[in-house]
Amino acid sequence: MLTPQRRPEPLTSPAAFAVFTMILTQGPVSRVEIARRTGLSSAAVTKAARPFIDAGYLRELDATERSAPGAGRPASPLTIRSDREFFIGVKITDSELIGVVTDLSAQVQVTAHRALPSPSVQDVVAELAALVADLLASAPEYGDRCHSLGMAISGDVDKAGGLVRYSPFLGWHQVPLAELVAARTGLSVTVENDVKALTVAEQWFGEGIGASSFAVVTVGTGIGCGLVVNDRVVAGAHGVAGEIGHVPVGGDGPPCHCGGAGCVEAIAGTEPILVAARAATGDESLTIERVLAIARAGDPAMREVLARAGHAIGLAMAAMANLFGPERIIVTGDVAGLASYELVEKQITRAFAGQAFGAAADCRVILRPRTFEQWARGAAAVAIQSLFTLQET
Amino acid sequence: MLTPQRRPEPLTSPAAFAVFTMILTQGPVSRVEIARRTGLSSAAVTKAARPFIDAGYLRELDATERSAPGAGRPASPLTIRSDREFFIGVKITDSELIGVVTDLSAQVQVTAHRALPSPSVQDVVAELAALVADLLASAPEYGDRCHSLGMAISGDVDKAGGLVRYSPFLGWHQVPLAELVAARTGLSVTVENDVKALTVAEQWFGEGIGASSFAVVTVGTGIGCGLVVNDRVVAGAHGVAGEIGHVPVGGDGPPCHCGGAGCVEAIAGTEPILVAARAATGDESLTIERVLAIARAGDPAMREVLARAGHAIGLAMAAMANLFGPERIIVTGDVAGLASYELVEKQITRAFAGQAFGAAADCRVILRPRTFEQWARGAAAVAIQSLFTLQET
Ligand SMILES: [Zn+2]
Ligand SMILES: [Zn+2]
Repeated sequence: MLTPQRRPEPLTSPAAFAVFTMILTQGPVSRVEIARRTGLSSAAVTKAARPFIDAGYLRELDATERSAPGAGRPASPLTIRSDREFFIGVKITDSELIGVVTDLSAQVQVTAHRALPSPSVQDVVAELAALVADLLASAPEYGDRCHSLGMAISGDVDKAGGLVRYSPFLGWHQVPLAELVAARTGLSVTVENDVKALTVAEQWFGEGIGASSFAVVTVGTGIGCGLVVNDRVVAGAHGVAGEIGHVPVGGDGPPCHCGGAGCVEAIAGTEPILVAARAATGDESLTIERVLAIARAGDPAMREVLARAGHAIGLAMAAMANLFGPERIIVTGDVAGLASYELVEKQITRAFAGQAFGAAADCRVILRPRTFEQWARGAAAVAIQSLFTLQET
Repeated sequence: MLTPQRRPEPLTSPAAFAVFTMILTQGPVSRVEIARRTGLSSAAVTKAARPFIDAGYLRELDATERSAPGAGRPASPLTIRSDREFFIGVKITDSELIGVVTDLSAQVQVTAHRALPSPSVQDVVAELAALVADLLASAPEYGDRCHSLGMAISGDVDKAGGLVRYSPFLGWHQVPLAELVAARTGLSVTVENDVKALTVAEQWFGEGIGASSFAVVTVGTGIGCGLVVNDRVVAGAHGVAGEIGHVPVGGDGPPCHCGGAGCVEAIAGTEPILVAARAATGDESLTIERVLAIARAGDPAMREVLARAGHAIGLAMAAMANLFGPERIIVTGDVAGLASYELVEKQITRAFAGQAFGAAADCRVILRPRTFEQWARGAAAVAIQSLFTLQET
């Protein structure tokens, strides 16, 4: 981060971090239970929680909210005051910005879109500033209690440096986006790769809660993946990780834009699906929406094109499960793409089950459609995590 | 471990563990440098090291051993007293036991083999006891200073429970091997999957030192893999991980014994190589040694069979690198197999480079032949790690 990193005052120690994030991600939870799960003493839990209560981040559940009557103080559950602070998250695509305001629990409060006149850095930063102003103006409490902005963007992102190293869709190289946007908005700004942002959102606020290893697979124009192993997002020693789109499941072909062959993305990405569908029909004007519609109407050639895509995705998921054995795999995507699933779900799960080795097949596969708003929520989750992290990772 | 776990007296805290293991794996190293790398204070380093020095595990380098003259006390490097304790490691195959004694730095001191009359549990335990007695008798100091035995075995092993859950080569199910061998030898006994044992040996005493993520790929009868991510061996949420042999790189085929198709192991394992070589020559008596000899003599059909195997291994390594981005990959195997490498090295490295995505290709690939003695050394490394670990993982 090039912008000065705010740090909430109660966040003073690893114990404070452990207690607060456990309540944030798994609360309401009693002090006794926190002590049990963290291995901290009850006294240490009480000591760590107190400043968060005083600063308004945490509160005890009211007697009326508790199910067990007459519970003593140490057993009375602590919960997040979700409206203590708000966060803006923005997903940046090449044609529009999708923004949300979330509360401290990453629940979306407001959504707004802005079309981009161009994907130039100047236009994107100007539209970002306008979008942020709109969002902040949408409720009076945001002016006082919203200080953090997270942005999610596809490509190679250096989160610690606030830098977009390379974004092929936008045509950006080495753009110091966090600094540019902080200067325009006055907010504390974080930028992260969009798939990693979704992974953080699942880890703290979604299907990843309680799983020390899981994967998020994103299906759309390309096929991406975020991995969490031993409770940490995998970053890759050379900056590359989660490139499930370039696992070679196709044998000798087809050729992929990466230079490899048989890549999942060269079979199940939007473009190769269109190429195959156009070749099968002779209709060069087919769009992905149209391919899906024709397939839904029962056309066997279109169904076969999509079945091959689903099969390739399932095989790559099995390759991943055989290698690192995640507890769960969450498959998601953009609404326009395959993520309506009914046309590929059977092939994905069948190919996965057929290729997963032994107990790796016990991995739970969760298929879930996802909207662009939820990508923006991922960006807000990164802003929340940045605020409540002791050290930049 | 069902046998009571010994714990060296100086190993009293996470700081003691951090200081000792840093000197063990990266020493000689000065207290100042240990403080810098661990983030501990100099006082904490000195306090943690003192009991290990008193107990004979560590010593300061003599002035004559130091390169920088006149270095003051805090800068004087600490080093392991390697002969403070010795460890036995045994690799168990279906036909023989290979045993070694190593010192505290995992340096092999003595090697011994014993043929197995049968792979029955009774015979293996009896021969293990005899092998251990031979090794202990081979030097007078082993009687006093050798208390730990590590065993490495292919298959599904529950290290914490000392249990061989399933070993296909031996035909074992649910064998409480650690308990059986501890009762016969009186030693503190650990049993681990052989590939994981090799991975531990690389992590603490080999090419993995200083790499927070790396992989060990083993090429032989089957194709296996050990993964270290963020400094921890990946175990798999459902007990499966590192099954690189079942990454589907062949497209629709060939069929694999696992039920999948196109698996690396179904192309590059010893058996499919023999099947292909016998089909190409019509000679049903071909052995893997003979295939390699004929290929070395220049036979194009045999070279083609091996080239396909090397290509499949390289593709699977790229799939792994694309997914989790290791810093290094160490490829190893048994001497009889492909691990003489000159016939497959070019195909492995070329397929890897062609399929690795972007900077994942920067991963260093280290090809190294390995002897059965070194698998036994891996078993000893696990015994060393078990002795110096605060908590069973
Ligand atoms: Zn590719
Ligand atoms: Zn297989």
